[in-house]
Amino acid sequence: MSPIPRGVFAPVATTFDDQDELDLAFFKSNLSFYATSQLDGVVLLGSNGEFALLDRTEKLRLIEAGVEALGGRKIVMAGTGVESTKGTIDLTKEAAALGIDYALIVTPHYYKPAYDAKAVLAHYQAVADASPIPILIYIMTAYTGVDLPSAVIAELSCHPNIAGVKDSAGNAPKVGEMIAQSHDDFAVLAGSASFLYPALCLGAKGGIVALGNVAPGLCAEIKNCFERGDHSAARELQMRALAPNAAVTSRYGIPGLKVALDYVGLKGGRPRPPLQPLGDDDANKVRTILDGAAIGPVQ
Amino acid sequence: MSPIPRGVFAPVATTFDDQDELDLAFFKSNLSFYATSQLDGVVLLGSNGEFALLDRTEKLRLIEAGVEALGGRKIVMAGTGVESTKGTIDLTKEAAALGIDYALIVTPHYYKPAYDAKAVLAHYQAVADASPIPILIYIMTAYTGVDLPSAVIAELSCHPNIAGVKDSAGNAPKVGEMIAQSHDDFAVLAGSASFLYPALCLGAKGGIVALGNVAPGLCAEIKNCFERGDHSAARELQMRALAPNAAVTSRYGIPGLKVALDYVGLKGGRPRPPLQPLGDDDANKVRTILDGAAIGPVQ
Amino acid sequence: MSPIPRGVFAPVATTFDDQDELDLAFFKSNLSFYATSQLDGVVLLGSNGEFALLDRTEKLRLIEAGVEALGGRKIVMAGTGVESTKGTIDLTKEAAALGIDYALIVTPHYYKPAYDAKAVLAHYQAVADASPIPILIYIMTAYTGVDLPSAVIAELSCHPNIAGVKDSAGNAPKVGEMIAQSHDDFAVLAGSASFLYPALCLGAKGGIVALGNVAPGLCAEIKNCFERGDHSAARELQMRALAPNAAVTSRYGIPGLKVALDYVGLKGGRPRPPLQPLGDDDANKVRTILDGAAIGPVQ
Amino acid sequence: MSPIPRGVFAPVATTFDDQDELDLAFFKSNLSFYATSQLDGVVLLGSNGEFALLDRTEKLRLIEAGVEALGGRKIVMAGTGVESTKGTIDLTKEAAALGIDYALIVTPHYYKPAYDAKAVLAHYQAVADASPIPILIYIMTAYTGVDLPSAVIAELSCHPNIAGVKDSAGNAPKVGEMIAQSHDDFAVLAGSASFLYPALCLGAKGGIVALGNVAPGLCAEIKNCFERGDHSAARELQMRALAPNAAVTSRYGIPGLKVALDYVGLKGGRPRPPLQPLGDDDANKVRTILDGAAIGPVQ
Repeated sequence: MSPIPRGVFAPVATTFDDQDELDLAFFKSNLSFYATSQLDGVVLLGSNGEFALLDRTEKLRLIEAGVEALGGRKIVMAGTGVESTKGTIDLTKEAAALGIDYALIVTPHYYKPAYDAKAVLAHYQAVADASPIPILIYIMTAYTGVDLPSAVIAELSCHPNIAGVKDSAGNAPKVGEMIAQSHDDFAVLAGSASFLYPALCLGAKGGIVALGNVAPGLCAEIKNCFERGDHSAARELQMRALAPNAAVTSRYGIPGLKVALDYVGLKGGRPRPPLQPLGDDDANKVRTILDGAAIGPVQ
Repeated sequence: MSPIPRGVFAPVATTFDDQDELDLAFFKSNLSFYATSQLDGVVLLGSNGEFALLDRTEKLRLIEAGVEALGGRKIVMAGTGVESTKGTIDLTKEAAALGIDYALIVTPHYYKPAYDAKAVLAHYQAVADASPIPILIYIMTAYTGVDLPSAVIAELSCHPNIAGVKDSAGNAPKVGEMIAQSHDDFAVLAGSASFLYPALCLGAKGGIVALGNVAPGLCAEIKNCFERGDHSAARELQMRALAPNAAVTSRYGIPGLKVALDYVGLKGGRPRPPLQPLGDDDANKVRTILDGAAIGPVQ
Repeated sequence: MSPIPRGVFAPVATTFDDQDELDLAFFKSNLSFYATSQLDGVVLLGSNGEFALLDRTEKLRLIEAGVEALGGRKIVMAGTGVESTKGTIDLTKEAAALGIDYALIVTPHYYKPAYDAKAVLAHYQAVADASPIPILIYIMTAYTGVDLPSAVIAELSCHPNIAGVKDSAGNAPKVGEMIAQSHDDFAVLAGSASFLYPALCLGAKGGIVALGNVAPGLCAEIKNCFERGDHSAARELQMRALAPNAAVTSRYGIPGLKVALDYVGLKGGRPRPPLQPLGDDDANKVRTILDGAAIGPVQ
Repeated sequence: MSPIPRGVFAPVATTFDDQDELDLAFFKSNLSFYATSQLDGVVLLGSNGEFALLDRTEKLRLIEAGVEALGGRKIVMAGTGVESTKGTIDLTKEAAALGIDYALIVTPHYYKPAYDAKAVLAHYQAVADASPIPILIYIMTAYTGVDLPSAVIAELSCHPNIAGVKDSAGNAPKVGEMIAQSHDDFAVLAGSASFLYPALCLGAKGGIVALGNVAPGLCAEIKNCFERGDHSAARELQMRALAPNAAVTSRYGIPGLKVALDYVGLKGGRPRPPLQPLGDDDANKVRTILDGAAIGPVQ
């Protein structure tokens, strides 16, 4: 079995210049900060990393830059799922050769009515068989319109090269069921800081949390408090994380995350179109929410 | 402010005879058992009580019978919400006169595109103003297609006669947000045993849980373990509750609940049409799942 | 087999006084107008008639008043579906005794996950068996969250006492499938003026259309043009009907319909809470849209 | 303004060999047949062409092969939309250089909560500004989870380089609204043979219909009958098209389309994973449905 990922990970933002081209200098600058943060690791090319807006070459350049900036100081995951099984295997192999530790494979979703359990199992088993590194299943229903039942997760959890699942929905019964039904060597990871503490209570091994981009200490501290049995403190931090987490995810999305990055002293900038930057009013609300949760400059 | 409800409540089943008429003898028999159980109280006329399939006269007869059978030994809530504000107020007043402690008011849902925040606030405020007893907001999105955002719950939580909310969705961030944003004298109650423990971790005051119909001790014990700080035991019981809970709710619904009631020695019988009884295969699955969770005869 | 309904019907509004009580004088005033209009008939207690906000006694009073006001001059349908099979049969029998011609039976919808084809077939067959008058199936997915597949409609169409279906969704392939698969003596009726003409082209026998409340002539004329083979004129009227139809249905709902009724010289007034009256801005928009379609005073 | 597309188009299947690689010989064989069919043109790289499962290089090779096989005998459209505005522009330019007539641009959909009207307008306007050939908007809600309101379509219809929209949902009121509100020089095209006739009645200029892959004559004949005013014949053909259309779209999807292609003597084969081929039972059902509609060998 593969070693399973534990801890708190940030799905890091991708940075663009004024011509909507990758800005790798900014990207590496952010990554260098995360390398010294309390995070256990990062996810390159997650949804928050605008992976869906990048082409294949850009994805590989970004992985290369990220791995270099981190310099082995943190665990590195990268999103290498595309719609076809074949394309996913190809990209995963190339990414693995660049030195990432885990590949995060989003559920195929375009032909969603056709993706029954049989198709999903075949897809993940083929990718896991072919991948030189362990893979994680990535469920992001709000963007994909696809959910996977816990019985499918349970079956996939027995594959020796499938190390875990990130589920972003926050449905507590589903988190419980995935943990109850899956193989012992399998990590269920919270997909958002908005339910990191209750997920840990249920047995999750950690989380991949967008808020970790701008408040890595707060996110890591939720896990630390939980691990030392201080539920009261963990709960309090969880409550403090709710509003800023919403600001950089469900409420203002990636444009909100980028405003927040700039506000805490990291590199945010503009999202790539068709994503639009926040207007001034919304940007001010993001900053006010961060202030309200005492999230300020990171360095 | 009203006293807020705390603890574990069962939304009790309604019993019918062979002509699909209310069987109040069976109903009172079940209630007499719950009166001596570890439950803190019961909900009459919840969704699991098939309230939507009863007429007004039947509802009042059921409340009368339930209050009598309980004899003041437990807290009694009853579902008195209908679609119109006027009808809800009328039924709530009549139910209050029969001696219930709290009225559970389901979100209006038929004209759902028209029910914006303004309409919802006006509805609940009018009902709370008119009700002689405190009311609880009841969110049951799987049946109604209506959800209420936490900001609406927060505003309603300030009304002195609105004592809490039951939310059945199990979305952990939403549970957290409702608790974080609501008035201190307001109870957020888990709407299913499937997330009772994580909801308690977040600050919920208890739960209204269908599984309490057939395993009141198991459900109450989750709360007891949590309250004495034994998270490990609470988590273990939570995990044990998942499969039987699904069997009597999301997976087999009310027909499954009724099979389970018969199996543990209480009165189940047939649901009222258009609900159909389970076929033999599914009924056997329910019993096997209960066995697997060591849920057996209650008396 | 029952005679099947043909033509254009208006699901008439219900009128309330300042205390949110039924105003039957206003109601009969409207009905007296419809009795002399180009409509083939009316539907009492449809969704637009706020049936879900009325109690049983009010429903019967309304039917009695409507039948009296129409005086046999038009076909009368009434919505008599409630959630339970038993309650639906009881109300349908009482309504039939008051002299209506057809009962419109909305799909049961509260326990929607439990309403599979078997439950739906059993419900409608039991109601049709027991009803002294022919029934129509009523699909209103936007409010109920329930749709019925065309195969279920086809099976029900063979029952001698099920005369047709009203489907409000406007999905053209579904309309075609229902017509193609159903018994010859079965009427598929468009559930909105927004697709009356294309439904007729596909073989629908007419429509039950909210716009008929305020523009009965326009709606009837679409059918007349179609029947005499003047597709060009029918299409032009259909296009003219789109914006005012949306104003009194999907866009502003029943509150919009009531503004429109007042504007054309009929009785509208306020909807029953939790429905809220339109604000002034939206009410002006409704009137402007009616003007734009040359819909003015009806008498 | 650009010339607008009129007529019946098939979104042609993409063919793969046993190693899931493009089989361009089979593809060109199919296209050579379509070049002599009654179709007005074809769409390469539509949803039915599995565009989402192809990489950029494969897409360009396919366009090149298709254009060559058609030899200027038919109008050629190709799907060149990817998630980013930048990527869509790049691919559209390259495809245009290969000789296609129109680019079909699917709605961006991954970050759906962020794609408000402003983002959608900016995306399509930027693509239309940059494209050397006219573009069509492509709405495919069943796969993307994204719909565009008719007001957005109306605004985009005024751009001189946006020639039309393909909407696959079949909602008749929406089709009517798009036609009523859009610029005169703008083509609304039915996205499925399941509503080609009613769409034409409403003023659509034609359709892009999957059934055209296997029954081009039947689909073209619906339009021919309509154009010569023979509504009765058009309606009859429409009814005949419903079941086979469902078999190759909503019911059995692309795997069903490929079975059907093989059955009529064209090249189908296997879909690319994660799409799975039909099992034998379902494949037989497809063939039986085609037989029932008298759809047989095309050459």
